[in-house]
Amino acid sequence: MRASRRIATLNAGGSDGWGIFLRAREMERQGRAVLDLTIGDHDRVTPRVLLDEMHRSAVDGHTGYASVPGTPALRSAIAARVAARTGVATGSDNVLVTAGGQAALFASFMGVLDPGDTALFIDPYYATYPGTIRAASGVPHAVAARPSAGFQPQVRDLETAPDARALLINTPNNPTGVVYAEATMRGLAEFAEGRDMWLIADEVYDGQVWTGAHLSMRSVAPERTLLIGSLSKSHVMTGSRLGWVAGPAEMIGYLADLAVNTTYGVPGFIQDAAQLAVTGGAEIEAELVQTYRRRREACLRTLAGHGSIGVVPSAGAMYLMLDVRATGLSGEAFALRLLDERGIAVMPGESFGQAAAGHLRVALTRPEAALNAAMAQIAEFAEELRDAA
Amino acid sequence: MRASRRIATLNAGGSDGWGIFLRAREMERQGRAVLDLTIGDHDRVTPRVLLDEMHRSAVDGHTGYASVPGTPALRSAIAARVAARTGVATGSDNVLVTAGGQAALFASFMGVLDPGDTALFIDPYYATYPGTIRAASGVPHAVAARPSAGFQPQVRDLETAPDARALLINTPNNPTGVVYAEATMRGLAEFAEGRDMWLIADEVYDGQVWTGAHLSMRSVAPERTLLIGSLSKSHVMTGSRLGWVAGPAEMIGYLADLAVNTTYGVPGFIQDAAQLAVTGGAEIEAELVQTYRRRREACLRTLAGHGSIGVVPSAGAMYLMLDVRATGLSGEAFALRLLDERGIAVMPGESFGQAAAGHLRVALTRPEAALNAAMAQIAEFAEELRDAA
Repeated sequence: MRASRRIATLNAGGSDGWGIFLRAREMERQGRAVLDLTIGDHDRVTPRVLLDEMHRSAVDGHTGYASVPGTPALRSAIAARVAARTGVATGSDNVLVTAGGQAALFASFMGVLDPGDTALFIDPYYATYPGTIRAASGVPHAVAARPSAGFQPQVRDLETAPDARALLINTPNNPTGVVYAEATMRGLAEFAEGRDMWLIADEVYDGQVWTGAHLSMRSVAPERTLLIGSLSKSHVMTGSRLGWVAGPAEMIGYLADLAVNTTYGVPGFIQDAAQLAVTGGAEIEAELVQTYRRRREACLRTLAGHGSIGVVPSAGAMYLMLDVRATGLSGEAFALRLLDERGIAVMPGESFGQAAAGHLRVALTRPEAALNAAMAQIAEFAEELRDAA
Repeated sequence: MRASRRIATLNAGGSDGWGIFLRAREMERQGRAVLDLTIGDHDRVTPRVLLDEMHRSAVDGHTGYASVPGTPALRSAIAARVAARTGVATGSDNVLVTAGGQAALFASFMGVLDPGDTALFIDPYYATYPGTIRAASGVPHAVAARPSAGFQPQVRDLETAPDARALLINTPNNPTGVVYAEATMRGLAEFAEGRDMWLIADEVYDGQVWTGAHLSMRSVAPERTLLIGSLSKSHVMTGSRLGWVAGPAEMIGYLADLAVNTTYGVPGFIQDAAQLAVTGGAEIEAELVQTYRRRREACLRTLAGHGSIGVVPSAGAMYLMLDVRATGLSGEAFALRLLDERGIAVMPGESFGQAAAGHLRVALTRPEAALNAAMAQIAEFAEELRDAA
């Protein structure tokens, strides 16, 4: 039986980026020690206080259908968080609770694209972006952010792109760690206004800002922005699948109608735990940020002693992007040899598109000592490769 | 900013069926006692043993990203359940775990429809069906099952329908409680084969069969059937949002790719609780079925004493469908007066399409005594209306 063309071509035209990850798993099965720095997930469990609240809510009876757009209390709590971070008045009717940030992204594209509409996104990019646009029957079109511009997207590169209904941006950025400058954000907003496009702003790392400040697209162009948020990265709740879209009330209303048909809402007991995270989880969030900050600084110190390897000048997110172009190898070739010869797994830049070719993404999701040792190994390996080249 | 046409027309052409429900809520807020028999959700909490397993799994660390198509253990457990109930060999690669039965339905339509393709469904129908097809950019087309045929769909009614890629059926049926006969199922399968259509079989009530036997469409036409299952109705896990699609491995593989882009999987701790439910929850399931069986029998006994009201000869599901056409009122008008004058809220048949006009759906989701009293009141009310007509 024939599948729809839409679903049979979801992964068209690209590696899924999981080759290294799967090879690392296979090596571990064969008994080899592998340090896995590929994964964008925390090396810790969701805080006990949140899990206990989830259990309390469930035992107390919040186990039937929950309100589909989100419980009133959680929508209100998220609205207050969004208002505080963006400076834009935000009410419950500006917020839809979703089954994670990915579901929020998908809903947003369903809300702005009709079949065949083009959506622009910036390369390098998080692995699901083109597939998410295709799943919504849209046509994804990548626009490169150049290493030479510090991976800040440039309006002149967007101007030659085809007509589109939406532009997807991600700041702080995965994989580069770059935080878009205010001038970048204002330029993108102006470009979107000129073409009457929606802006879909994935800002799930908005709490992980190491230097400077993050500016939300909702602060710049609230009338055309769908802001994607999540508790995955901020409150160690990746597995709880709890995210949101914040945006104009009319669109949020439509997305709530959609949610009736896609998931029929999010578990009420998870929403109650999320409400506690949003209203009372500041310490959890601060401690987690502090951990990644310390890890990042340690890695940067180690790498600074080696000229063989460049570091993308990033300002946010729980990743470092290393530039290994001086070795003459692609990111993929480097990552494969690093795994085979040193037992360290990192994501090749090519997994995130063509703009990050010759780079590696290192997830800071292992303890500081292990990360530090890995950085030294990677730098030494790059030196050997460069000297042999 | 303009929303997509797709999302702005999701609810086109129909009442959403929640008028009575919302009016009942409003009356309660004003202090009036209302017996709410509109809701397809249990009057009890998810069993404590399942909630405790969920908590144990989370505390033990299953709080990161879970395997997107489902944990191997849960996929395998569901596969065994499906195999036992359908007699069709079913492996893990025939099963995708989804965020509830609704997400399974949505994924299925995404998997079989391209934008603009028609999907047939049977009227009366569960409220989300046309919207789910529209959300997948399909064109929903209702085919009536007639009261005179005991609400069993007839192939001759399907033959005049437009060309379509898929036919959605639901047995045991919500709202009618009708279980499709073997002849019906074989006729539908033959029809689908003749037109090379997919069959999407929503069988979430497959454990609630009061008389006779339920035959799964996967038993009849496994190569073209996507079977929708869920723990919502069987194990009191509505709020956990845990369902599945079972079908041909190639399609399940595509749907797993889709899940990466729509939800990025289902919480691991919920999957672990689900695994316990599927592998060790037989008593939970049996006790729940027994409760609904007793309630149904009590209601039927009460109604049998009254000639004023007909009962659709149903054989499954946690609903009764009453025929109030003898009163001369529409289901909607009857339900409104019943709510206002007797404080009993039931769903009008018209909420489920046109084929159930002049009917009421009663959810058996209240204690036996309350249900029994309500049946007597409804029957008396129907008598008064009939006599006054």
